[in-house]
Amino acid sequence: MIKAGVIGATGYAGSELVRILHNHPQVSLDCVTSRSYKGKKYSDVYENYRHNENIILEDENIEKMSLDLDVIFLALPHGEASVRINENILKNTKIIDLGADFRLHKLNTYESWYNVKHNCPEILKEAVYGLCELHRNEIKNARIIANPGCYTTCSILSLYPLVKEGLIETDSIIIDAKSGVTGAGRTVNINNIYCEVNESIKAYKIASHRHTPEIEQELSEASGCDIVLNFTPHLVPMNRGIISTCYANIIKNAEYVDILKAYEKYYSNEYFIRLTKNDIFPETKWVKGSNFCDIGFKIDKRTNRIIVVGAIDNLVKGAAGQAVQNMNILFGFDEREGLDNISAFPI
Amino acid sequence: MIKAGVIGATGYAGSELVRILHNHPQVSLDCVTSRSYKGKKYSDVYENYRHNENIILEDENIEKMSLDLDVIFLALPHGEASVRINENILKNTKIIDLGADFRLHKLNTYESWYNVKHNCPEILKEAVYGLCELHRNEIKNARIIANPGCYTTCSILSLYPLVKEGLIETDSIIIDAKSGVTGAGRTVNINNIYCEVNESIKAYKIASHRHTPEIEQELSEASGCDIVLNFTPHLVPMNRGIISTCYANIIKNAEYVDILKAYEKYYSNEYFIRLTKNDIFPETKWVKGSNFCDIGFKIDKRTNRIIVVGAIDNLVKGAAGQAVQNMNILFGFDEREGLDNISAFPI
Amino acid sequence: MIKAGVIGATGYAGSELVRILHNHPQVSLDCVTSRSYKGKKYSDVYENYRHNENIILEDENIEKMSLDLDVIFLALPHGEASVRINENILKNTKIIDLGADFRLHKLNTYESWYNVKHNCPEILKEAVYGLCELHRNEIKNARIIANPGCYTTCSILSLYPLVKEGLIETDSIIIDAKSGVTGAGRTVNINNIYCEVNESIKAYKIASHRHTPEIEQELSEASGCDIVLNFTPHLVPMNRGIISTCYANIIKNAEYVDILKAYEKYYSNEYFIRLTKNDIFPETKWVKGSNFCDIGFKIDKRTNRIIVVGAIDNLVKGAAGQAVQNMNILFGFDEREGLDNISAFPI
Amino acid sequence: MIKAGVIGATGYAGSELVRILHNHPQVSLDCVTSRSYKGKKYSDVYENYRHNENIILEDENIEKMSLDLDVIFLALPHGEASVRINENILKNTKIIDLGADFRLHKLNTYESWYNVKHNCPEILKEAVYGLCELHRNEIKNARIIANPGCYTTCSILSLYPLVKEGLIETDSIIIDAKSGVTGAGRTVNINNIYCEVNESIKAYKIASHRHTPEIEQELSEASGCDIVLNFTPHLVPMNRGIISTCYANIIKNAEYVDILKAYEKYYSNEYFIRLTKNDIFPETKWVKGSNFCDIGFKIDKRTNRIIVVGAIDNLVKGAAGQAVQNMNILFGFDEREGLDNISAFPI
Repeated sequence: MIKAGVIGATGYAGSELVRILHNHPQVSLDCVTSRSYKGKKYSDVYENYRHNENIILEDENIEKMSLDLDVIFLALPHGEASVRINENILKNTKIIDLGADFRLHKLNTYESWYNVKHNCPEILKEAVYGLCELHRNEIKNARIIANPGCYTTCSILSLYPLVKEGLIETDSIIIDAKSGVTGAGRTVNINNIYCEVNESIKAYKIASHRHTPEIEQELSEASGCDIVLNFTPHLVPMNRGIISTCYANIIKNAEYVDILKAYEKYYSNEYFIRLTKNDIFPETKWVKGSNFCDIGFKIDKRTNRIIVVGAIDNLVKGAAGQAVQNMNILFGFDEREGLDNISAFPI
Repeated sequence: MIKAGVIGATGYAGSELVRILHNHPQVSLDCVTSRSYKGKKYSDVYENYRHNENIILEDENIEKMSLDLDVIFLALPHGEASVRINENILKNTKIIDLGADFRLHKLNTYESWYNVKHNCPEILKEAVYGLCELHRNEIKNARIIANPGCYTTCSILSLYPLVKEGLIETDSIIIDAKSGVTGAGRTVNINNIYCEVNESIKAYKIASHRHTPEIEQELSEASGCDIVLNFTPHLVPMNRGIISTCYANIIKNAEYVDILKAYEKYYSNEYFIRLTKNDIFPETKWVKGSNFCDIGFKIDKRTNRIIVVGAIDNLVKGAAGQAVQNMNILFGFDEREGLDNISAFPI
Repeated sequence: MIKAGVIGATGYAGSELVRILHNHPQVSLDCVTSRSYKGKKYSDVYENYRHNENIILEDENIEKMSLDLDVIFLALPHGEASVRINENILKNTKIIDLGADFRLHKLNTYESWYNVKHNCPEILKEAVYGLCELHRNEIKNARIIANPGCYTTCSILSLYPLVKEGLIETDSIIIDAKSGVTGAGRTVNINNIYCEVNESIKAYKIASHRHTPEIEQELSEASGCDIVLNFTPHLVPMNRGIISTCYANIIKNAEYVDILKAYEKYYSNEYFIRLTKNDIFPETKWVKGSNFCDIGFKIDKRTNRIIVVGAIDNLVKGAAGQAVQNMNILFGFDEREGLDNISAFPI
Repeated sequence: MIKAGVIGATGYAGSELVRILHNHPQVSLDCVTSRSYKGKKYSDVYENYRHNENIILEDENIEKMSLDLDVIFLALPHGEASVRINENILKNTKIIDLGADFRLHKLNTYESWYNVKHNCPEILKEAVYGLCELHRNEIKNARIIANPGCYTTCSILSLYPLVKEGLIETDSIIIDAKSGVTGAGRTVNINNIYCEVNESIKAYKIASHRHTPEIEQELSEASGCDIVLNFTPHLVPMNRGIISTCYANIIKNAEYVDILKAYEKYYSNEYFIRLTKNDIFPETKWVKGSNFCDIGFKIDKRTNRIIVVGAIDNLVKGAAGQAVQNMNILFGFDEREGLDNISAFPI
């Protein structure tokens, strides 16, 4: 039994974290904090917690929390984690940051895409990128884990075996991604209100979304060369779910079985990755509420391209679920602990 | 560890049952059947079951199943259970029927509302109406349990303390209920296709919905007099959830605290019923995916009426969840076993 | 050709007004105002107006506008119209107010339900309640018209013939209404964001919604006695549409044909009211985007109650459409002018 | 005033056609047919037509219709138009076919993608591809017009100026398209029911959708070389709307202004095409219910690709609206006649 805390527990990712940790058999969730709602019962903010009146939102004090807790999760807007973390804290506790501050290894990449100064570049250097299936070994010994973004988790997992095995032209990658509205967080602005989102679809942040360098970093590392790619996110009128539809030119002569072999090589022992059958493609409803990433692909002989479709629940494998998976790895628990549920359907 | 089977495992209620039983620590789900999909892997019908390729849909043979299994759940259209059940089966196994065949105690009420002949009136007599909070003691010793309808569960629980305690005029009850579309089942017809349902609301089966006599039966029993009431269902463009908005004339002088006392008398020890705070009313999102029934009420001094709002997830407390709750009672398990999860939000 | 202006042209009701007036063959829409967006092109706020770059949002100056325009529509939050209108303005132009300030004839009813002081009680006295089908003659000569609320239009029209003809017990009326989310306006708050509204239904402002006294006023006037009733609004996850499900005890012996005769007496010459066939009930999708109010009813012999269902588009017949219908009456145009379209489906 | 008929008037495209033609000032809609509903009032199938009880669904007799009518629209599944049309009919009337039978100039392309034999290859030769903005002159004199598909209209218009002006590498085109559910028609099958579609997104018919050769045909013709491209459709949980997100490698040195110039060259006089401002991208809500196609683009200097986003209403510019636009051209009416409405919002 370890002691855990969540800073930023009332956003959508934060509350999903609270839900999963609350049910986790190895975790005692001892502290949840919120600036907006401090002092309130969690059940007064989220009525689904009625009957759990003992969860109280506290004011945030990370230094103090670090003395009591084995692990602290941060679910904060970018730029907020890097002003909180310091060597002292890392000496006392493990940090799993769901934000963007520690994801990009290169300081200048972070500073140019996020347009802020990074507050602790030395800690950035040691942070481990917490895409569990790719970096399990480094995660085990990390003091601070940068939990990947939602789009990035889905996109990297979809393409990793192809770039790792050199099966596609690395300058030909295009990722067209679609997300449900929880991806925008619990943000109150005009673009987020029901009637502005409902019954419409749009692309946004074309050629400028901040998950782009994160995807490029991981795929570049896998391929050994510098990958620059296109990533276009879209907003879909639904609560949860992301699919990434990925396009790339195939290196000559790769057939279905060659590609399948590559995916199986990396993923056949990965519980949370499920390869779909030939000619069946992932739909977000089959992963909703679960930590699975479903992946399917199709070769188009006419254009000699591969189309890969990956699907996740953006709040689970794309945020809170993967954060808990990281915690499980970090503390030597079974990786599935607290995460091993099948999606309800239809939900 | 008991052995369970589900007949009709590919409808929405059936598949929710499979999901809950699959995770239930005291249950081995040994047999799931489907006429439409027999021989298929469950994961080929429901892709969320990938990684569980061992669940195979079998042809139905209830006699044989009754020899092997401790409990059999039936999730079938009305009229289908009563032609399957007989004394032999009941000698061998417990039956929990999610359909309507054994819910109405009076044969002629069943036959006139459902417009079919009942096939085993003698078994109807012994069937226990499985609204757990009202009939827990009879459920314990039942051989066959009639799991209540979705609208009925929500409506009866909302009104029960009021009629039981004589706080309302029994001839003044009006129930205006609203349900998500899973309530219509996995039925393929023109009225059920996406664009016919989406972005619209309608009332249906006004003054003729078959859940009416079921509500009347239970409330009449509670009050000791014959209650006749209005029940109007509506279809709401969402997957899950029911709210019942109930109206009745208050017997003179009942105040908020009197009413609250009545609800607490019956429900303060009921884990799956949660009373909302004063002036907070249930919303379906707070119970989605859970077995909770949330209830709130308001007294209107101007009209001397009470308005009670109840909310459930129609597939959980309104179907599969309550069926498992019945099973837990029947086999002496903790009533929460397999059902004790908080709703994810937003989902 | 008359000259019209809209104050508050960027809310949902205001923009629907702009759209209808823009297409109206008898209207030159000469001035649209907005405090939030003044100086901007309308097409920069609402991208559907691209190609109409000439519509510029002006700062509001009602005194000046009243000199130039034949009619001014106000689409403002309650309390805002009554501080703008004065005798001078009414001498110059006609006012159609979509807000609540001039709807309630009794000053103290307004002040107690809205909890504000009314700024021009003398003008309140002369304002005509613009429910076109009920008050056509007074509308013709009005200087200021109070356009009815959305719920109220739907509810009053549904019940009017019954109370007018004395067919129901006036103390037995219960209205359970359901609205799409545009009813909440273009309001930016946490309760209005997509993921909080989507996939859920709730009741709100139980026994306290401000449309209650408006419905009571009109039905009382029709019946000749003081009617007090229950009105419960619900929020439904869809953009547009309202249905009112109304319940009342029938005065003895009224049969289907008697009731039908009453509806036909008042509505058979009303173009914008459509009675559904026996046993067919209104759905909001059939009136979406149109100015129609569809009404159907059912007699429940078991309880001796009538259930009436009315459906409108809350932004059209429930706001902008009826406002234009009022304008048509006021200026002697054909009442259908600019409003005579069939709903697109599915939309 | 011309006389028009619609064959297949109860599907979604057919009914949208009925709606537009019903309101068209130059058209008398004299005959609407349906095999499923013949003999019924249109208002009994589509309740939004109440008050228009005179529209009766007739049995189909195209020979007879061709003698009476100036133009016949066909809204039928593929393979059905080509068995109906013959020289006799074309001598008597104009045909506008909303299906796929006459869209592909090459017989073998049609037969291999649609997997049927074409019934009248000689008529296929003369059919004009009715993408109005590209083929206006040929449309004027056509006897039979093949109305383009929904995805194709959106995709071709988005890319046409780029390929026509040689601004992109023609072997680099990838189109990732997303459609609302009306795109699947009024088809009753399990994949189309509400709960299977709602709250999920999926790709389908990857590398095999039949709109692919149609897009290739038109872009090849524009570029002068054989274009082979990737087209991936996705199903989005909303009623209407398509966006095509198109990717291509830019020929060196093309800047924003060069690209803009190309779009303006072809589209600045096209009423139904609206170019968005720099860094604003089309959303389906701004074109919903209208005949507009909105187009915006972004150059990604990092990858040297252009991303073009096009948006239409699939039932209007993607089907019935464009069919009427074709009719307007054919009969010398103003091209906007019957089509010149701004989208309502939110709807």
